[in-house]
Amino acid sequence: MTVDAVRRAWAYLSRVAESPCPALTAFVAGHGPVEAAARIKAGAMPSELAGRIAARVHIDTASEDLEMLDRRGGRLITPDDTEWPHLAFTVFDNDEVQRRESGRHPMVLWAIGPARLDEVAARGAAIVGTRAATAYGEHVAADLSAGLAERNVAVVSGAAYGIDGAAHRAALGVDGVTVAVLAGGIDVPYPAGHSALLHRICGTGLVVSEYPPGMRPARHRFLTRNRLVAALSGATVVVEAGLRSGAANTAAWAEAMGRVVCAVPGPVTSAASAGCHVLLRRGAQLISRPEEIIEIVGKIGELADDPEHPQTPLDGLSREEMLVYEALPGRGSRSIEEIAVEAGMPAEQVLGPLALLEIAGRVQRREGQWRIVRDAPQPAR
Amino acid sequence: MTVDAVRRAWAYLSRVAESPCPALTAFVAGHGPVEAAARIKAGAMPSELAGRIAARVHIDTASEDLEMLDRRGGRLITPDDTEWPHLAFTVFDNDEVQRRESGRHPMVLWAIGPARLDEVAARGAAIVGTRAATAYGEHVAADLSAGLAERNVAVVSGAAYGIDGAAHRAALGVDGVTVAVLAGGIDVPYPAGHSALLHRICGTGLVVSEYPPGMRPARHRFLTRNRLVAALSGATVVVEAGLRSGAANTAAWAEAMGRVVCAVPGPVTSAASAGCHVLLRRGAQLISRPEEIIEIVGKIGELADDPEHPQTPLDGLSREEMLVYEALPGRGSRSIEEIAVEAGMPAEQVLGPLALLEIAGRVQRREGQWRIVRDAPQPAR
Repeated sequence: MTVDAVRRAWAYLSRVAESPCPALTAFVAGHGPVEAAARIKAGAMPSELAGRIAARVHIDTASEDLEMLDRRGGRLITPDDTEWPHLAFTVFDNDEVQRRESGRHPMVLWAIGPARLDEVAARGAAIVGTRAATAYGEHVAADLSAGLAERNVAVVSGAAYGIDGAAHRAALGVDGVTVAVLAGGIDVPYPAGHSALLHRICGTGLVVSEYPPGMRPARHRFLTRNRLVAALSGATVVVEAGLRSGAANTAAWAEAMGRVVCAVPGPVTSAASAGCHVLLRRGAQLISRPEEIIEIVGKIGELADDPEHPQTPLDGLSREEMLVYEALPGRGSRSIEEIAVEAGMPAEQVLGPLALLEIAGRVQRREGQWRIVRDAPQPAR
Repeated sequence: MTVDAVRRAWAYLSRVAESPCPALTAFVAGHGPVEAAARIKAGAMPSELAGRIAARVHIDTASEDLEMLDRRGGRLITPDDTEWPHLAFTVFDNDEVQRRESGRHPMVLWAIGPARLDEVAARGAAIVGTRAATAYGEHVAADLSAGLAERNVAVVSGAAYGIDGAAHRAALGVDGVTVAVLAGGIDVPYPAGHSALLHRICGTGLVVSEYPPGMRPARHRFLTRNRLVAALSGATVVVEAGLRSGAANTAAWAEAMGRVVCAVPGPVTSAASAGCHVLLRRGAQLISRPEEIIEIVGKIGELADDPEHPQTPLDGLSREEMLVYEALPGRGSRSIEEIAVEAGMPAEQVLGPLALLEIAGRVQRREGQWRIVRDAPQPAR
């Protein structure tokens, strides 16, 4: 059995049934691709499978398909390849996933690009969102994507206009790895306006599809494709999404898979963020910086720093020191007795905090009166 | 013991210690206000209390304070009044609250305005946020506040510039009830630029403070005041807040009190929303519409409607109908066999869905070819 015969069998099988087809996947796993293809062509198969392949059993374009693939430097990725993302695809063992329409792993994947799919899946995050993105959404998508790609996280998305495109482009812009998962054949650039973008992704990242060459994207294929985006990503980040959005579908896949669902907030006045806010109300993790995504998809210990808090001259003061400090007027000065009344503290208890504040350079005494020192040194953190 | 003597005693006691002063509150609860005031002036009290009142024991401006209060049509609200929000103040029994600095209920409250404090607390929501609000934040604060006030929810806030002011003004604008909780005397309009706003609130809502007349606001009094904002509100909604913000302090009080903490999201690029996003990451409830707040502070059953989902012509189609529908081209027509190949279904299984789609007016047949009907009727929900 030649390598070519095996490849031709996989290519034929990839087209003979609409993916995913668990009956076909199981048949191929049992007989091997070459034997399975021969049996199907001979009509020797269980009746359940016969129904699924009936419409396309006579179509065998494997040779042309593989020639196209070779010409473009692509490859078929099968479960027999070390690159097959076995670990990531264990999510398809999940009952929640299997209950959903198309909730099975693909049988084989068509791919073009230097990135290894198993490595992508081990450290990947999906950045997805609406085609009707706002300038804000595209800006944030690009910012998150560049931040991930710079830290060697693969940015997985669907190559659509809007958020997806902004995410892919930003990853390319920092020479990072980005992966486009298509809902049609890898030789069918979709949307057509992203042909050049997909070409660039083929050069440095990965364009991947479970559909054979020439297959055109269709609505149900986008929904089916979305499960692959979620499965190949440790976290799915929805940047902008309307109330009805494919990105929400990808998030639902991620949730069923037990993967972390994230959403970027936006103005509540923006319809493009409404879907994100619904996700956040349902428990999605709020994302405002790339570090917060890396904390999820990265190695243990890659924790995001706390955002920097602005400092004020009152940081680090004790309660008594603060009461005394605040009892001093903005301009001018006060006596010990006046400070005591204002602070509501006995005069003798005012002295200690005043002395400490003086040592710290926050207040000064002049002729028995106390005043605030402006531009006092900032306290050590 | 005349009513006037009791009022004068409360007024004196309100100033003699910095509020809240649990030692004084307990002493007054034990002896009654008149006897407590007399004992304090005579120096007959526990030493713990003596320290707390030492600086101000000699100050008795009760008559002038009450004269000012009467002139403005105000009142003292004490635990003996039916208006005292006993139920709301049970949050001060909470250990988490008592552990915090100033985590005790006020002894007495100075108030001006027709709204009853107990009714406010039974159906109130705090709308708070940064003084450095953006146009977006002020817009959302006003929108939420008006929506609450129109549905008879009292809008509680702190009368500051920015979010607080926008919330108060919007409630006034729909003839609703709004409550300003001050960090100084009710005769000390703060900020000064909100004098007219506070005057309007006195006319239809409530201006309230635990501090005696003339007391100027100070930083620690804002922090102390914030606990009252939270206590008087079934939910605390932070509309915009920087990373370091008084509103975050109010939210911390609400959390310690077991009250619902809410935050409005905004652009992640906006520093004015950064504090809200931190709260949301920590579990605050995301708010995008007034209805979502009413669901929390309103009566059981006042549930927010789900946001409206846009409809598409494919709503309500079965999986098979969708596959068949999608197998038809955008323009032109296809034969049964072509549809079967595209959909990956046996030709005989394509007929049933096609017939149903035809009945529904979604597709039509002409000379053995099938095509999509544009502008098909919308499906019933």
